[in-house]
Amino acid sequence: MAFYHRRTCPRTMSNLATVFFLLACIYSSQTQSTEQSPVQACETDHPEKVAEEEVSIQHQLDNLNLLLFLSLLVLTILTIWLFKAHRFRFIHETGLAMIYGSIVGAIVWYTADTNGPEHDPITTDAQECDISKATSSIYLSLEYPSNKSVTFQYNRLGIIKGGAYTVPSAFVEKVNFDPEVFFNMLLPPIIFYAGYSLKRRHFFRNLGSILTYAMVGTAISCFVVGGIMYSLVVLVMKRTDFNLKDSLFFGALISATDPVTVLAVFHDLQVDVDMYILVFGESVLNDAVAIVLSRSVESYDSDSFEAGPILKSLGIFIGVFVGSFAIGSVMGCITAIVTKFTRIRDFPLLETAIFFIMSYMCYLMAEAAQLTGIVAVLFCGIMQAHYTYNNLSEESKKRTKEVAELAQFLAESFIFSYMGISMFNPRNQYWDAGFIFSAFFAILVGRFLNIYPLSFLLNLGRKQKIPWNIQHMLMFSGLRGAIAFALAIRNTATVARQLSLTATLIIVLITVVICGGMTTQMLTWLKIRVGVSDEDTAQQQGMQVVGSQNTEIDVRIRKRYDQAWLVRQWYDLDHKFFKPIFTRKGADLKETLPLCCYPVARCLTVMDEHVNEDSDSDLILDENSSSADQLSGVNLEIAQPTNHTEDDIVLDADLGLGSNQITTPGLNLKPIPAVV
Amino acid sequence: MAFYHRRTCPRTMSNLATVFFLLACIYSSQTQSTEQSPVQACETDHPEKVAEEEVSIQHQLDNLNLLLFLSLLVLTILTIWLFKAHRFRFIHETGLAMIYGSIVGAIVWYTADTNGPEHDPITTDAQECDISKATSSIYLSLEYPSNKSVTFQYNRLGIIKGGAYTVPSAFVEKVNFDPEVFFNMLLPPIIFYAGYSLKRRHFFRNLGSILTYAMVGTAISCFVVGGIMYSLVVLVMKRTDFNLKDSLFFGALISATDPVTVLAVFHDLQVDVDMYILVFGESVLNDAVAIVLSRSVESYDSDSFEAGPILKSLGIFIGVFVGSFAIGSVMGCITAIVTKFTRIRDFPLLETAIFFIMSYMCYLMAEAAQLTGIVAVLFCGIMQAHYTYNNLSEESKKRTKEVAELAQFLAESFIFSYMGISMFNPRNQYWDAGFIFSAFFAILVGRFLNIYPLSFLLNLGRKQKIPWNIQHMLMFSGLRGAIAFALAIRNTATVARQLSLTATLIIVLITVVICGGMTTQMLTWLKIRVGVSDEDTAQQQGMQVVGSQNTEIDVRIRKRYDQAWLVRQWYDLDHKFFKPIFTRKGADLKETLPLCCYPVARCLTVMDEHVNEDSDSDLILDENSSSADQLSGVNLEIAQPTNHTEDDIVLDADLGLGSNQITTPGLNLKPIPAVV
Repeated sequence: MAFYHRRTCPRTMSNLATVFFLLACIYSSQTQSTEQSPVQACETDHPEKVAEEEVSIQHQLDNLNLLLFLSLLVLTILTIWLFKAHRFRFIHETGLAMIYGSIVGAIVWYTADTNGPEHDPITTDAQECDISKATSSIYLSLEYPSNKSVTFQYNRLGIIKGGAYTVPSAFVEKVNFDPEVFFNMLLPPIIFYAGYSLKRRHFFRNLGSILTYAMVGTAISCFVVGGIMYSLVVLVMKRTDFNLKDSLFFGALISATDPVTVLAVFHDLQVDVDMYILVFGESVLNDAVAIVLSRSVESYDSDSFEAGPILKSLGIFIGVFVGSFAIGSVMGCITAIVTKFTRIRDFPLLETAIFFIMSYMCYLMAEAAQLTGIVAVLFCGIMQAHYTYNNLSEESKKRTKEVAELAQFLAESFIFSYMGISMFNPRNQYWDAGFIFSAFFAILVGRFLNIYPLSFLLNLGRKQKIPWNIQHMLMFSGLRGAIAFALAIRNTATVARQLSLTATLIIVLITVVICGGMTTQMLTWLKIRVGVSDEDTAQQQGMQVVGSQNTEIDVRIRKRYDQAWLVRQWYDLDHKFFKPIFTRKGADLKETLPLCCYPVARCLTVMDEHVNEDSDSDLILDENSSSADQLSGVNLEIAQPTNHTEDDIVLDADLGLGSNQITTPGLNLKPIPAVV
Repeated sequence: MAFYHRRTCPRTMSNLATVFFLLACIYSSQTQSTEQSPVQACETDHPEKVAEEEVSIQHQLDNLNLLLFLSLLVLTILTIWLFKAHRFRFIHETGLAMIYGSIVGAIVWYTADTNGPEHDPITTDAQECDISKATSSIYLSLEYPSNKSVTFQYNRLGIIKGGAYTVPSAFVEKVNFDPEVFFNMLLPPIIFYAGYSLKRRHFFRNLGSILTYAMVGTAISCFVVGGIMYSLVVLVMKRTDFNLKDSLFFGALISATDPVTVLAVFHDLQVDVDMYILVFGESVLNDAVAIVLSRSVESYDSDSFEAGPILKSLGIFIGVFVGSFAIGSVMGCITAIVTKFTRIRDFPLLETAIFFIMSYMCYLMAEAAQLTGIVAVLFCGIMQAHYTYNNLSEESKKRTKEVAELAQFLAESFIFSYMGISMFNPRNQYWDAGFIFSAFFAILVGRFLNIYPLSFLLNLGRKQKIPWNIQHMLMFSGLRGAIAFALAIRNTATVARQLSLTATLIIVLITVVICGGMTTQMLTWLKIRVGVSDEDTAQQQGMQVVGSQNTEIDVRIRKRYDQAWLVRQWYDLDHKFFKPIFTRKGADLKETLPLCCYPVARCLTVMDEHVNEDSDSDLILDENSSSADQLSGVNLEIAQPTNHTEDDIVLDADLGLGSNQITTPGLNLKPIPAVV
């Protein structure tokens, strides 16, 4: 792996040059193609021909547009490989994609012929309620001298900025592709993979802290940012096109953190898994919270603080969050049930296909039900990893993981390239240096008031304190990324929204490039230990503790930690009921369910009797758990998590992020060896 | 694998019921959502709100549409699993997807409220050349009493059938999704996988026959079908809206065969690989030919036979085919070079990503250059399998294969579902029983005149005759599928095109369901041996020959077969130059290239010296080949293909379709054991 040849560089560089040449070709060819079309259209008397030409021109423009993005991706991937091979960690693929994107974007926007022919808008006086004239489709009928008539259908794209009727060249038009593509195609794989690759054991152990940062912290951040923006932009800078609701909306969208670059460095340098999960878990859940918050703010009906609308928005927040959670979880469970009770695992291709289709369906269902699909798909991913994964065939286990990882990688690179390209898109942006500086100030304060006070409160309750250096690292990990951008670009109808989008783009670029680049440096400054391999962990496990504050952590404290009420309850429920219902593992339902449910229990466990070929590990697990069940309270509580340990470690390692767990100063949350 | 529980059926069925229930929910919810929108739009004075509402409604409709398709896919997959588990081979997933699709389609089209409000088209008199008024975007400006003005942008969708201004409900509108999606998103994975999973050894051995059927045969089929359609529809039925060009276009598009159901049965029943490759290879290449033919016909400028336009079309045919082939091959080779000369294989995720992006780019580049991307992507797939595959890391080898297979499966199921749903779409169809019957008659005659005369001619040249039963099977394998549909739906502006689309849909449905269902029966009737496993083959290899006509095939004949000029030349070139240039395998370039190219040769083989960790098999191969090189003519020719045998068998087995090779009556094309 570490074997690298310096001499390959020039060749790679020549590849890069090829790609650039290609880009130039694309660009020149598009200019030609758009110029041809009106001439050809004019020379014919056959309207069908025009339609055919139109179809082929549109198709060609779509292709050129995609080709541009893909060339960018190839360029990014090759450069990233070069950096990785050189152990050059100062820039991550997302940052690079964005930088390349913005270079290409600048070329496209500033060289493109935006001073095209001016078209008079078809103007209608809207006397009463004539907004209804702007139907979603309109039809333009042209009559020919030859008594032929041809009708074109036009679909409404959206509202454009008042007054700007200069038509940009067709290619430039196309680069503005529909923001719904983000939501429907690009975000779901990213978020699903986040859920699917979550190290659940560590996640559930730190559930309390993660939930606090993600729920309370994001709300704090949203209101702090909103408040500061309102004070600075509306009260100080006296903008009239930006109101309280816009401020809060900006606060909500910019509170979605996306520390993908930081996490990549954490992964490469093998930092402590619990610190990893704090950063990762917070960012994953806070995306969900930020999305739902922005929805609630959007539906806030008033321009001042009033109890009614506030309560309504709160209701929407809770309703949307719970509803999306429910849809995601239920779809995850349905997939688990389908894969448990059918023998579709004999056909891994069908199994994988159904796994992804059902995961994607949960996104669509949540959106169709006016909830948020991203939140649903996140929890669906977690459920799929926790239950369905156990039912899959060996081949599907690998395949689902690999496909999800690839999809995530491609979608993420694509989004960041797109962000780069839209950086200089004049269409839906509104630059205001004051606004951007205010936004930077606001997010810094917002993040500060999120991390430090909450860490203080958490440390009051936690036996394992979150030390200062981890708190600083959490503060530092507040990068912004894909979700913030997706929320901002979704609607750019008003100036306020355009201001927000522009500020978001700049914030994403700066945080991704600067924070991403400085992560390694930061880990050194904060004296966070890195690079401890699995073997070290195994040796240290339960004995050696490296740390400053807690140089000796006795078994009791750790026992206490493992017994945190929420976690304990969850493990208990999960092991006794959910696991055996949705998978072929876990406790025996016939024993855990009350007697009256015996028929149901028998029905649900019926497959276990037949499917013995692959249940070696299950049997071992069952032995463990049944012996654990016979023990009294305390032992049970210790045994339970440990019971899952082996199982989950394997799962975590399988699920992509490596099983690197090390002991950092003062944060030793290692599993205790089984006492039973 | 063979272990199956009957008791799981009821549960699966209840799952299916759930899916159906879901469909009902979708359907009812969509009706509500579309009814709400106009009311809400009218009540507000804020145009931005309308835009926001519009965005969310459009988004919801997109989701519902996708959800409908995905539910269909889940239903199809579960049913197919049920059938597979029951060894019920009478229907393939594609046929089933189409049937389910047509049921749902019938419900959607016949229950949907198509008698929506009539909208007056915005009519303009086109005095002179006013087709230019139908610009690709138009702007509708509404002025408000409050002196606000709001401008909506509308993008041109296309021409609609003259006179039909009833606006269908928004959901129904959406189900008609852009046919370009087929070309850009769904076809490339299917065709790429066909190329990537091609059993190249068998393919190259039967190259002559495959090329004859695919090139000459498809052209025959196109002109025969075109001629018959012209005679019947124009001359006999006297339709004035269908001309010679339309007939030939229909002939070209309907000549693309897609025997996916037959091949699935072949695979399940393990028929002879050479028969498999004849059917598969013909269908893959004839798609390419049919696409290019239809392009040439479209560009035919005249309404009668004239030398000029015919030559021009011929030129276009050759130019487009060769151009697309070149782009595909070159991109394949570039990918091979990139993966050979960079150490990107250390990062399998990046490697897989770049592999797929570059393959997809070749599609886009060909389309952007006005060539056909499908043809390019096919040859790119073959190149990727032949060269790039050897350079990939072990992980990427598996992953690329699996991802391509999954994408192919999903795309194919989706297309067939979509075909089912469009079966009853009144929008772009035109039913004419006479036309449909003529089309069936024409394709039967066209296939007949393709297979039998060409087989006769081929048998004159072949030592290994193609026996009657295989010829009948080839005749029977002329199913129509995705490509024919995609070509037909691409443009439905005229009545002739709508007639063609309708006929194509019916032909696809009937051939897929009937021929697909009867394949097993047909194999029995034609006495084609099935179910011979690899071990049998190994035992039989080179000795036992089961057959009627050629009961004893001596080594000389087989040697002669292996030495077919084209194949021999290709193997020689490939082994001496292409393999060593594009991969780390094959002969030593420093020996095969002329002395003047020594520096180039050294440069191209430079990686071999360093990368020894994974070249065990290469060394063996190199030994073989260098000894083979030292031998004189005949021995070399025998040794060459054999040399590749082991390598390729492994590849073929890896690449998805299993390595089942058996000896069928009279068609023994087995490799001979190495003589060296």
